[in-house]
Amino acid sequence: MKIWQKNIDVNKFVETFTVGKDRELDLQMAKFDVLGSLAHTQMLETINLLTADELKTVQQELKNIYNEIEAGNFTIEDTVEDVHSQVEWLLTQRIGEAGKKIHSGRSRNDQVLVDLKLFFRACIGDMVNQTSTLFNLLIELSNTHAAKLMPGYTHLQIAMPSSFGLWFGAYAESLADDMELMLAAWKITNKNPLGSAAGYGSSFPLNRTLTTKLLGFESLNYNVVYAQMGRGKTERVLAQAMSAVAATLAKMAMDVCLFINQNFGFISFPPELTTGSSIMPHKKNPDVFELIRSRCNKIQALPNEIAMMITNLPSGYHRDLQLLKENLFPAITSLNECLEIATFMFQNITIKDDILKDKKYDYLFSVEVVNDLALQGVPFREAYKIVGEQIENSTFAPSSQIHHTHEGSIGNLCNEQIAASMQAVLSQFGFDKVNKAIEDLIR
Amino acid sequence: MKIWQKNIDVNKFVETFTVGKDRELDLQMAKFDVLGSLAHTQMLETINLLTADELKTVQQELKNIYNEIEAGNFTIEDTVEDVHSQVEWLLTQRIGEAGKKIHSGRSRNDQVLVDLKLFFRACIGDMVNQTSTLFNLLIELSNTHAAKLMPGYTHLQIAMPSSFGLWFGAYAESLADDMELMLAAWKITNKNPLGSAAGYGSSFPLNRTLTTKLLGFESLNYNVVYAQMGRGKTERVLAQAMSAVAATLAKMAMDVCLFINQNFGFISFPPELTTGSSIMPHKKNPDVFELIRSRCNKIQALPNEIAMMITNLPSGYHRDLQLLKENLFPAITSLNECLEIATFMFQNITIKDDILKDKKYDYLFSVEVVNDLALQGVPFREAYKIVGEQIENSTFAPSSQIHHTHEGSIGNLCNEQIAASMQAVLSQFGFDKVNKAIEDLIR
Amino acid sequence: MKIWQKNIDVNKFVETFTVGKDRELDLQMAKFDVLGSLAHTQMLETINLLTADELKTVQQELKNIYNEIEAGNFTIEDTVEDVHSQVEWLLTQRIGEAGKKIHSGRSRNDQVLVDLKLFFRACIGDMVNQTSTLFNLLIELSNTHAAKLMPGYTHLQIAMPSSFGLWFGAYAESLADDMELMLAAWKITNKNPLGSAAGYGSSFPLNRTLTTKLLGFESLNYNVVYAQMGRGKTERVLAQAMSAVAATLAKMAMDVCLFINQNFGFISFPPELTTGSSIMPHKKNPDVFELIRSRCNKIQALPNEIAMMITNLPSGYHRDLQLLKENLFPAITSLNECLEIATFMFQNITIKDDILKDKKYDYLFSVEVVNDLALQGVPFREAYKIVGEQIENSTFAPSSQIHHTHEGSIGNLCNEQIAASMQAVLSQFGFDKVNKAIEDLIR
Amino acid sequence: MKIWQKNIDVNKFVETFTVGKDRELDLQMAKFDVLGSLAHTQMLETINLLTADELKTVQQELKNIYNEIEAGNFTIEDTVEDVHSQVEWLLTQRIGEAGKKIHSGRSRNDQVLVDLKLFFRACIGDMVNQTSTLFNLLIELSNTHAAKLMPGYTHLQIAMPSSFGLWFGAYAESLADDMELMLAAWKITNKNPLGSAAGYGSSFPLNRTLTTKLLGFESLNYNVVYAQMGRGKTERVLAQAMSAVAATLAKMAMDVCLFINQNFGFISFPPELTTGSSIMPHKKNPDVFELIRSRCNKIQALPNEIAMMITNLPSGYHRDLQLLKENLFPAITSLNECLEIATFMFQNITIKDDILKDKKYDYLFSVEVVNDLALQGVPFREAYKIVGEQIENSTFAPSSQIHHTHEGSIGNLCNEQIAASMQAVLSQFGFDKVNKAIEDLIR
Repeated sequence: MKIWQKNIDVNKFVETFTVGKDRELDLQMAKFDVLGSLAHTQMLETINLLTADELKTVQQELKNIYNEIEAGNFTIEDTVEDVHSQVEWLLTQRIGEAGKKIHSGRSRNDQVLVDLKLFFRACIGDMVNQTSTLFNLLIELSNTHAAKLMPGYTHLQIAMPSSFGLWFGAYAESLADDMELMLAAWKITNKNPLGSAAGYGSSFPLNRTLTTKLLGFESLNYNVVYAQMGRGKTERVLAQAMSAVAATLAKMAMDVCLFINQNFGFISFPPELTTGSSIMPHKKNPDVFELIRSRCNKIQALPNEIAMMITNLPSGYHRDLQLLKENLFPAITSLNECLEIATFMFQNITIKDDILKDKKYDYLFSVEVVNDLALQGVPFREAYKIVGEQIENSTFAPSSQIHHTHEGSIGNLCNEQIAASMQAVLSQFGFDKVNKAIEDLIR
Repeated sequence: MKIWQKNIDVNKFVETFTVGKDRELDLQMAKFDVLGSLAHTQMLETINLLTADELKTVQQELKNIYNEIEAGNFTIEDTVEDVHSQVEWLLTQRIGEAGKKIHSGRSRNDQVLVDLKLFFRACIGDMVNQTSTLFNLLIELSNTHAAKLMPGYTHLQIAMPSSFGLWFGAYAESLADDMELMLAAWKITNKNPLGSAAGYGSSFPLNRTLTTKLLGFESLNYNVVYAQMGRGKTERVLAQAMSAVAATLAKMAMDVCLFINQNFGFISFPPELTTGSSIMPHKKNPDVFELIRSRCNKIQALPNEIAMMITNLPSGYHRDLQLLKENLFPAITSLNECLEIATFMFQNITIKDDILKDKKYDYLFSVEVVNDLALQGVPFREAYKIVGEQIENSTFAPSSQIHHTHEGSIGNLCNEQIAASMQAVLSQFGFDKVNKAIEDLIR
Repeated sequence: MKIWQKNIDVNKFVETFTVGKDRELDLQMAKFDVLGSLAHTQMLETINLLTADELKTVQQELKNIYNEIEAGNFTIEDTVEDVHSQVEWLLTQRIGEAGKKIHSGRSRNDQVLVDLKLFFRACIGDMVNQTSTLFNLLIELSNTHAAKLMPGYTHLQIAMPSSFGLWFGAYAESLADDMELMLAAWKITNKNPLGSAAGYGSSFPLNRTLTTKLLGFESLNYNVVYAQMGRGKTERVLAQAMSAVAATLAKMAMDVCLFINQNFGFISFPPELTTGSSIMPHKKNPDVFELIRSRCNKIQALPNEIAMMITNLPSGYHRDLQLLKENLFPAITSLNECLEIATFMFQNITIKDDILKDKKYDYLFSVEVVNDLALQGVPFREAYKIVGEQIENSTFAPSSQIHHTHEGSIGNLCNEQIAASMQAVLSQFGFDKVNKAIEDLIR
Repeated sequence: MKIWQKNIDVNKFVETFTVGKDRELDLQMAKFDVLGSLAHTQMLETINLLTADELKTVQQELKNIYNEIEAGNFTIEDTVEDVHSQVEWLLTQRIGEAGKKIHSGRSRNDQVLVDLKLFFRACIGDMVNQTSTLFNLLIELSNTHAAKLMPGYTHLQIAMPSSFGLWFGAYAESLADDMELMLAAWKITNKNPLGSAAGYGSSFPLNRTLTTKLLGFESLNYNVVYAQMGRGKTERVLAQAMSAVAATLAKMAMDVCLFINQNFGFISFPPELTTGSSIMPHKKNPDVFELIRSRCNKIQALPNEIAMMITNLPSGYHRDLQLLKENLFPAITSLNECLEIATFMFQNITIKDDILKDKKYDYLFSVEVVNDLALQGVPFREAYKIVGEQIENSTFAPSSQIHHTHEGSIGNLCNEQIAASMQAVLSQFGFDKVNKAIEDLIR
């Protein structure tokens, strides 16, 4: 059953090639397709394209279908092309003629657009939530391990004293900044494309402001040609936001793999969370972090992949865009899993004590001594020279005390301020407003 | 003169290789390096690392250097490694000992970090400004050409009526959304890394809150390890925001190249703005738009390039990061030039009249007729069938009238709303506050 | 059942995360895993790590398993980690102790390496075969449509006369050049990593030259550390070769989408191979080519994705590499499908006659006239000026005759030479030698 | 002076934007532009488009210009658009009318094409040469340090004994494989596009076989439409080959940065080749290797950048392609510099003795002991268990002897075979034939 079909059969080979993984991927959008129809039909009634009675029947049955989807009792049949056709077909089966009318003033193009926006909105909600959980844990670990010193490296050379308080906190603050990009993706996503039809609008007197309100969108993609351009663009922006979180996770995973290595030996995880080798008992392969790193690096390549698929396409819909689901949907799942397992792993991390007591870390403290001299009034470049000579003459004695007091330093982590800045970003998403609208729609 | 230099000469070959293009690129940061020092020294005085007298001398001379830079009278000498060394060297030459003290509580690492942030902040200001100018022109063109119809394509097949009002407006609205990403880049950029020293903080009792305020930053990169991580990350986020604008421009350029092609023939530019061939007088090669497209596609590849250069680097500074200037600085210039010349070209565009009168565009109107029937009460799928048969029997008569009234359609472009949403994003940058702080610093 | 497992259970969550899609993807490698074991065990017997009797039993049972795989009667059980474990487990179940011995002198690392190489070798065979089929069709179409003229564009502006003979032939020749990259991928793939163990070799007196010969490899990855480095590298090189073919297909698909557009209207396909719209009968949406373009552009992004996942990993195995299967395996299938359906579509293409009779193409012939003058002795730049003036004074008369005679021109396509150069590349793969070795192994 | 220019001035702003960096970059192609003209004019005489006398004059003056370029006495004037115009203008200035004739049967399009091919051919020669030098050094270092053991890591965990013989040799063998891709790039590059004119051939009876022979090309790009397609494609293939070498260098650089880190401490370089810190005397920042890594990772992103700039461009020339010079030319220089400085650095490397004597490396030898048992007849899985228990009971005694004898192992590096396989690839380039042709042309 193809909606645009007349008399001629599309060759089977062609059909298989063109449908691709749509049936499988569209399942994830089913719920959102129904939400779009719930809003669209409410609007149709206000412009007299549905009667009040028809609307009532349609709404009731759409809600039934919604519940079936939630309960896992929904599939896209092999004879049906995609989720939109499946929902419409079910509806028509069950309530007859009125079911056919829901497509008025709409094309599959803007139906996909709105489904994707609603779906991505929900995905962003999940990802923000998972990020937030990991963020809270990192702040907690930073506070817990504030006093555990470790060497800080520059050029991968032993350089200055650092701490696990700093290390955990750094990644927390990184996630907070990443949420700025996610917020941008959210804002671009949270605009209503419904009513753009095939990308050139409709001669029906649609009320797009109404569907915008019903679906909880913040605003419209006004221009219908732009609404269509949102396909591909929304995906790329979302992928960019995801790549920011992924970059933070990948870097953290790289650090973990290094710090768990026996030449560093700063951290460990319980045996059941690493993989080993029965004849090399020292081996605690950090497979989970290697896979987080690898998955996240793959996600980092995603915006480029999407760009490569849409670059130099003139305006207007192209079937090319259909394939973007294959890139993005699994990546969203993957990122959520990475966030979840990273949280789980860090709940079980052990930090070694007294790392800096090893002699090879003595020189870490040279700059401290220089600064002490400077604070006593010696010009900085002079102090620098004096200590350099002490070191050369082997008369240098490391201070084992660290008195860093300024904002964001070992002794003053500012985790509360970091948490506050995270909170400030999170509060701008407005998930509540969106959730409220959805609840009203399906009530 | 290398600041870390002791006795041993670094091999010349090594020096040439490592300095690379620093001297050339650093010139663009010179102004901002002085700004950073103006703020840093004010702070040093408050913690007694400079006397009030020293501060006065230092500030005066830094302002002199700032003015020399503005006047174009500043170079980085061949014997000097980078801009930071050059400024410090000039200062010490001119005011003696006090000049040496300005490096207290600071390392080249956080000096570069703050210079880059200040520089990028200024660049974002420029890019937003240029984008805003093009945006305004596109809105104006959309209004001017609101009634000029053109074919709308889907799958590159003639599909529905569109208009130049829609076409110009779509790209305007696209730029407005792109500014959301630019805003995210701005927010991430507009935080103060100064005081992070080599990425692990300092034993000096620095007042980072003060320098934050003096430099007009919205907030701090609190955690010093995270402040260091900002290198590379800030560049990538900025490149992502730039790639959004670039994607919009590239797509528009692709459309222009197609529409100026003789098989379409919708638009033209004056001969002096295209390149031609004296023996093919019909040729109006759209070189400018081809180069906009190519430059912008290059910019679209930039975030990936940056990611490739920083991926899997453990935390802490690596010299790898130095090269990012080579990618990003010219790309910023290039994007600004593209925005500028696109504006210039569009000021000179001519749109053909009566494009749709060509018979090949008749079928564009078939959906209009279907909708008319539907509005008269015929179920959509039925109306669809009727018109399909008319077309097959060649009894179909295109209506030449377009009555699209809904939000964002041909007859209701909503350009005011689009302009308002642009304005809403722009107002969040807070350039005024930043400019005010800078003026106070150099006054 | 995990081979390295001792007493401690790996947490379930961790296990699910780390196994990932291995069981599903490894199925494609099953056949090749058995081939590797057939060769490895023959070698083990020569160094007395298997008795002649054990070898006989092992070989017989491995061949049984091979046949089961071929017949589709092989699965990887949920309790088993990967294909290597599954094969070893089956063997031990069926023949007891001897089954356990086949792992001697081998680690899972070099087992995966050799499986992948054997698998990729087979994949390259398939892709070359499919490319060759499409190549032959393109040459045939070029010959068939040698006389059908079309406009040639530069800057997307009408420029010079071209022909479908040229157009089809160009893509054929492009595929021939693409095979050079595929040949490089083949040569890098067709070297034996077996015997490298975990990437550092083995204290067993392995005979790697023997397994090289048995598996039909051209040579060895000699250095065991390099053999391990081949993981990731082989994938990237293969992806680069695939991206070359993909780029050719994508460009061809872009041309098709343009030429089938009604403003060009050069070509068409039967209705059952395009998708349409019952109310816009002129619409023949080239979905297949849009999807070829999109899939191939995705493949073009693949080498970058792989690079992003392996960049900056130090030498030695990392679990990151496991994920590369997820990128590459489906891409290979996808490229083969694209090649297959492109061939199918082109078997059904129709080329419009007399395209150049349309007046808008008159100026195409201006350069011909310039050249005629030049051949009569007028300096080129002069001739150029004369015709330019004729055109400006509207006295220019297009010649409708094309006499291009040089190599590779409209009148002298050189398709035989192109086919010969394709053949010259294909002959260097040496598939026969490889197939012969495999047949000997499983006989 | 623009060759296609008639009466109308191209706007200055447009001109600056479109010329871009052409004048600067084209200088690198000047020599090759003259070579192309030397061959083209010889051919023109054979088809009577130049008289024997004209040919003599033209050839003499072109050789003069060639020598001026070689001597550094050639510039592209500001009033001249590009290198092709400059050469033609010089020629006409000096020898009058005959100079104008050299453009017959040629367009700037195929002139650029052939210039680029000749230039890239020379670049490949340089890169292969530099790679070969580094390769030889690595083989030499591998032989020299064959007996120096080091830990081998998997998952970045201490795993098996390795050696610097293996480590150096691995990167040598990697470069040998990289040359396969370079050879593919060479083969694709080393075909003659001259005679394709603007991409659609010419009505002149050109003898392309003759210019092919004169310029030392192995063969032609036969099909003229394909010859034009070579632009962008050649660049991408070359970039892919370069990215292979770059990936090898970047990985090696990552290893170096790790091994020079104090937690590993395996290698060192003389102080004058590292950068340091006078107050942290232990710091030997490996800036050179960090920059090699960064530059090479940038080169790894290059093929993607090129793909992004040419993807979805329909066939025929587009001005977009002009910009590819900006990407590729500096990358070629950069890769050569990386190869050169890597060679220089490795000439000065010091390897630490007795690395494995440190107790933390004891378990490296566990597998050796397992294998010994297996060689004595104990089934592998049993041996594995026994040693596992010894280790758990702390009864395990590491053997300090390594007896690896198989091909490519610590005790049998097979460096001669690796060198032979390198030689086998190098011999296929045929640089001699090319150089001979060029010498004949300019003699």
